[in-house]
Amino acid sequence: MINKEAKTKYEILTLLKKRWSPRAFADKPVEKEKLLLLLEAARWSPSASNLQPWIFFVGIKGDEVYAKIMNTLVEFNQMWAPNAPVLILNCGKLTVRDENVPNGTWQYDVGQAVAYMSIQAMEEGIYVHQMSGFDALKAADLFALPENVRAVSVSAVGYPGDPDMLHPRMQKSEIAGRERKEMDTFVFSENFGLVSGIVK
Amino acid sequence: MINKEAKTKYEILTLLKKRWSPRAFADKPVEKEKLLLLLEAARWSPSASNLQPWIFFVGIKGDEVYAKIMNTLVEFNQMWAPNAPVLILNCGKLTVRDENVPNGTWQYDVGQAVAYMSIQAMEEGIYVHQMSGFDALKAADLFALPENVRAVSVSAVGYPGDPDMLHPRMQKSEIAGRERKEMDTFVFSENFGLVSGIVK
Repeated sequence: MINKEAKTKYEILTLLKKRWSPRAFADKPVEKEKLLLLLEAARWSPSASNLQPWIFFVGIKGDEVYAKIMNTLVEFNQMWAPNAPVLILNCGKLTVRDENVPNGTWQYDVGQAVAYMSIQAMEEGIYVHQMSGFDALKAADLFALPENVRAVSVSAVGYPGDPDMLHPRMQKSEIAGRERKEMDTFVFSENFGLVSGIVK
Repeated sequence: MINKEAKTKYEILTLLKKRWSPRAFADKPVEKEKLLLLLEAARWSPSASNLQPWIFFVGIKGDEVYAKIMNTLVEFNQMWAPNAPVLILNCGKLTVRDENVPNGTWQYDVGQAVAYMSIQAMEEGIYVHQMSGFDALKAADLFALPENVRAVSVSAVGYPGDPDMLHPRMQKSEIAGRERKEMDTFVFSENFGLVSGIVK
């Protein structure tokens, strides 16, 4: 298999180094027990006031949930997402217990839950490719979401596959090295843009 | 030390089970190398179009950054946050490369980066307590944030301490068990509220 391991400056957890977002998935289902593990990991992530705003719709290739989620994806994502045996629509509740009070960190907290899910997936040899390229309004319609629930992303989930299965347009990024900004561009001190002494 | 390990139904990663958000921290600095590890973990988290919208201001107890961040916290958090040797203001860039185009998932992606940071912290025996109880406008002012950058949370970071150091009001939650909603309240299938067969 291709080596996409992050070229880290400091020795972070192997799971975090190894994780990346493939578009090629093996023609192999994700076991129900594994899906439960992924959801359990998400369940134990932190959230503001422990509100746990996350809501997941889990589609298995061949079922109606999967077809509906696929239907919300932008054309580019529809080119490769059918490789994945599982699609999850990641949603969040926009309000706190009182339905009229907005929860300002619902997106942030859903992001954390999906991060936990992705890391647990890596432990199982399963990869998660998150997409923001989908139609959230269409998702709201197809899944009958209440007004205070919104879809924020779609995860393609599965075991890794052979990059050769991909459209040539997508093969390059599938085998390319992973890139990140340098720390001195985002770790600051007293004022915006003033690089922190820690990273100098 | 108190046992706050999550009572999980399925055997998720030990790091994810053990993580929780304390208010008591030991009177012990976090080593610079450890902070770099935490930031490196955040750096390798995923983001929409690899935009990496996260920006961190790192305050060390005694320095000006720390004092500024403390100053943004709500009164309740100011009661315990001074226990932490490190405070991080977690921010995000609201726009894509073109400064006029909004990035719809900036909060979601910053959440993921902080999740990665928290999990790497657990590996080092360090705990992260995130707070949304702070004044984001005051933070924008104090740190001279540009219009397209916003603060979304504050993390208290440090080694765990003795709950006895806390105000009696806070001791109860410090030693209480951790609670989460059942999966059948947030894992759905064809329509909102229709429980997924996976979790039945």
